[in-house]
Amino acid sequence: MRYGIAIFPSKKLQDIANSYRKRYDAHYSKIPPHLTLKEAFEADEEDIKGLVKDIRKIAKETNPFSIEVYKFSSFYPVTNTIYMKVKENGELENLHEKLNSGKLAAARKYQFVPHITIGQELDNDECSDVYGRLRLETINHEETIDRFSLLYQLENGTWTVYETFLLGKED
Amino acid sequence: MRYGIAIFPSKKLQDIANSYRKRYDAHYSKIPPHLTLKEAFEADEEDIKGLVKDIRKIAKETNPFSIEVYKFSSFYPVTNTIYMKVKENGELENLHEKLNSGKLAAARKYQFVPHITIGQELDNDECSDVYGRLRLETINHEETIDRFSLLYQLENGTWTVYETFLLGKED
Repeated sequence: MRYGIAIFPSKKLQDIANSYRKRYDAHYSKIPPHLTLKEAFEADEEDIKGLVKDIRKIAKETNPFSIEVYKFSSFYPVTNTIYMKVKENGELENLHEKLNSGKLAAARKYQFVPHITIGQELDNDECSDVYGRLRLETINHEETIDRFSLLYQLENGTWTVYETFLLGKED
Repeated sequence: MRYGIAIFPSKKLQDIANSYRKRYDAHYSKIPPHLTLKEAFEADEEDIKGLVKDIRKIAKETNPFSIEVYKFSSFYPVTNTIYMKVKENGELENLHEKLNSGKLAAARKYQFVPHITIGQELDNDECSDVYGRLRLETINHEETIDRFSLLYQLENGTWTVYETFLLGKED
């Protein structure tokens, strides 16, 4: 099965992201707006039980932290993706690092650039046009992240949450 | 915000449900296939923190249990909904009861009929036609349920998982 790990930000930020995704994101109906912590990986149902224990431990060791969305950006010309950029942040980087090392190690295609995608699989002209407009818009949103989710992909390409992990000690 | 509580069954059962939902379910892209434990309800973000504690307690008191999907059925003429019927089951009923009483009490429109919807908002002719065909098909699937999820609804009508709750003691 194909799994992935992501943060779902607040409803407010998801609604903002969806106002763009509706028009520009080919994956709009596959998954809610999210910040990817670990790219899709294959694991069987037995393996995942062991990995879940590691992930729970990582979540407990990580305290809730703040994220700040501060501008629109693009991965063009690597991919025709437009996103809301999340300010670099030691706690988030540390969490990402832990979720991609040890038993969770994965071949990494790209450096970790924390982001929430709002457009993808656009053709060159549309990508350049949309990004040209969005880069002039201001966005400034800060919020606390206190959980993340392990998801798996169904045959139709949509994602279902398998488990949420609360950061820090349970209250 | 609008919240709800549901069980997401195994990927296998979700894929089966989606093979029908794709054609017959107006909510296909709003939420993965699920068994509703608590209908949509309104709560603000402060209230939900208290309710989450109650829900965690309910989850811990409930052991994992088995469900059996054994036939297709329909709520017609009450609503034009077609579903996979889940055999009645004391543990599931008990869990539903707890999630709909005390602080979680809610006005209940219908009696609890455990089911996984595969078609809804069909017109009368289509509902009768599709159900007429499906009731001749056999389905027999049994699996263990060891978790359920609290979700909230975004402005576009889709649902995001807020937290998963594991049944029984954590291992």
